[in-house]
Amino acid sequence: MFSALDQAKKAYLHDEVPVGAVVMKGDTLLVSSYNLVKTTSDPTAHAEMLALRAASQILGTSYLDECDLYVTLEPCAMCAAAIALARIRRLYFGAYDPKGGGVDHGAQVFKHSLHKPTVVGGVCETECSNLLIDFFKLRR
Amino acid sequence: MFSALDQAKKAYLHDEVPVGAVVMKGDTLLVSSYNLVKTTSDPTAHAEMLALRAASQILGTSYLDECDLYVTLEPCAMCAAAIALARIRRLYFGAYDPKGGGVDHGAQVFKHSLHKPTVVGGVCETECSNLLIDFFKLRR
Repeated sequence: MFSALDQAKKAYLHDEVPVGAVVMKGDTLLVSSYNLVKTTSDPTAHAEMLALRAASQILGTSYLDECDLYVTLEPCAMCAAAIALARIRRLYFGAYDPKGGGVDHGAQVFKHSLHKPTVVGGVCETECSNLLIDFFKLRR
Repeated sequence: MFSALDQAKKAYLHDEVPVGAVVMKGDTLLVSSYNLVKTTSDPTAHAEMLALRAASQILGTSYLDECDLYVTLEPCAMCAAAIALARIRRLYFGAYDPKGGGVDHGAQVFKHSLHKPTVVGGVCETECSNLLIDFFKLRR
């Protein structure tokens, strides 16, 4: 999660909502990414989506069933469903997102998906959350 | 929807699950795309995702609020949430998908999303559905 937090800090510096993600295969960090929605004008360019796409390209398969995803914020419904489609083994996320989350909140995607990863929320929650609070405080 | 069906037929010829999508801005067809999950080894490469990403690149914005999306199959939760994030105005889909759909079925994403497009399901349902039935019949 520390690597994901480093990615989130990069997003912050690029004036993007500070969310970072990494995909691990066993002890190997496969890819790391951060939110690029604003920079790329792409509504789907969340950190998790970029990480899943990059990992699938590296491994040459759309099934990442031996991989774990770490992300600093509870995934939205789009990212949660993509995690299920990619058959990610374990999902670790940092801050909870009652407004935009799709795992423990909102659409609760894994209650309906064919594949259900093991989910651990609240990992380094304070650090992940503070970065987001700081970011939005400056913009209000 | 006829253009989206043409795209679905292209997917079929490429041995991809035959789903096609187009994004319209008013009377102008902005982009058309088809499912490329297998070809690209990308679990997120559904027709709708490719169409949304291409349209946002053409228009230079992640907000497609003057655009309508036509897709031959009920979007899954990932695509439905992406449609909401992109603020698509109207969604027209063909076949219903009780197993994998995320609009009228499963996670029913728009019940939880901040943006809710106008949704019209069952457009050219028989043609859209038959293409999928044919595809899976050959593979069983």
